[in-house]
Amino acid sequence: MNGMEMLFTRRSIRSFRPDPIPKEILDKILEAGTYAATGMNRQSPIMIAVRDRALRDRLSAMNAKIMGADMDPFYGAPVVIIVLADRSISTYLYDGSLVMGNLMLAAHHYGIGSCWIHRAKEEFESEEGKELLRSLGITGDYEGIGHCVLGYAETEEGEAKPRKSDYIYYVD
Amino acid sequence: MNGMEMLFTRRSIRSFRPDPIPKEILDKILEAGTYAATGMNRQSPIMIAVRDRALRDRLSAMNAKIMGADMDPFYGAPVVIIVLADRSISTYLYDGSLVMGNLMLAAHHYGIGSCWIHRAKEEFESEEGKELLRSLGITGDYEGIGHCVLGYAETEEGEAKPRKSDYIYYVD
Repeated sequence: MNGMEMLFTRRSIRSFRPDPIPKEILDKILEAGTYAATGMNRQSPIMIAVRDRALRDRLSAMNAKIMGADMDPFYGAPVVIIVLADRSISTYLYDGSLVMGNLMLAAHHYGIGSCWIHRAKEEFESEEGKELLRSLGITGDYEGIGHCVLGYAETEEGEAKPRKSDYIYYVD
Repeated sequence: MNGMEMLFTRRSIRSFRPDPIPKEILDKILEAGTYAATGMNRQSPIMIAVRDRALRDRLSAMNAKIMGADMDPFYGAPVVIIVLADRSISTYLYDGSLVMGNLMLAAHHYGIGSCWIHRAKEEFESEEGKELLRSLGITGDYEGIGHCVLGYAETEEGEAKPRKSDYIYYVD
């Protein structure tokens, strides 16, 4: 897929088939995440790629609870990539966001739907979230930036909604 | 350029030729910015594309002052796109970062170098920054997210620095 086409045709997907994503494609998506720009190349983010069904469902439940809703906030997606970033680095929030962006774009390149699901911050501020990080051997002051949920889309991607009229200002 | 190649070969450029960027290419880069994902598609960011030399130099001076340095923080780039986002929308910081990401990637697609220059937050918290927004007819509670400086690179893009070894964790 052409780069500009990739930027213009990515859509947020909110309905997924349960089919797994081939490991080699997931690896390329994650690698694309590592190539996001980071402030002074300090690489403050980390990614946790969750394919384990039990953990995926536990995260979904934690997220739903924060939301105060009784549903799967991951829309049935079989894979969840959690992006966190090291708060001790001043650009961490911007860095982590760019990693999320690369993940969504690379997924789209491979015909895989994605959506940024929020509340990762609250999730990993909880004791359960902190314990989860510890259990993976992750130490340090990490803040949840987002969940990039991934899977094959249930339905065709629609047209983009109109962009607002005052998005761009020129000073020539 | 292929989408994955675009993600893997973008580099931050810190030395620019003064040559202008053709308007039709700048327009495509900005349009790519508007296609970044935003929380609930609320499109919280705005972009100010600065080609005017006087304003570009004024911004550079404001930025250098915040930095406490006596240099051009925009590395000679002829074009500066300021990204700001509406603080009243909870996802504004993430949204604005994704716009920055799309700008850098689209620029690379067209063979144009870019770099994220920080301190936009401090710049637009100053009275001078606020007055600048007012002079452009921009009202509302906008926070500076970043400057995407653009231009033709002075030197060849180098190899990417190594990625850290603990960027990715798997839970299978």
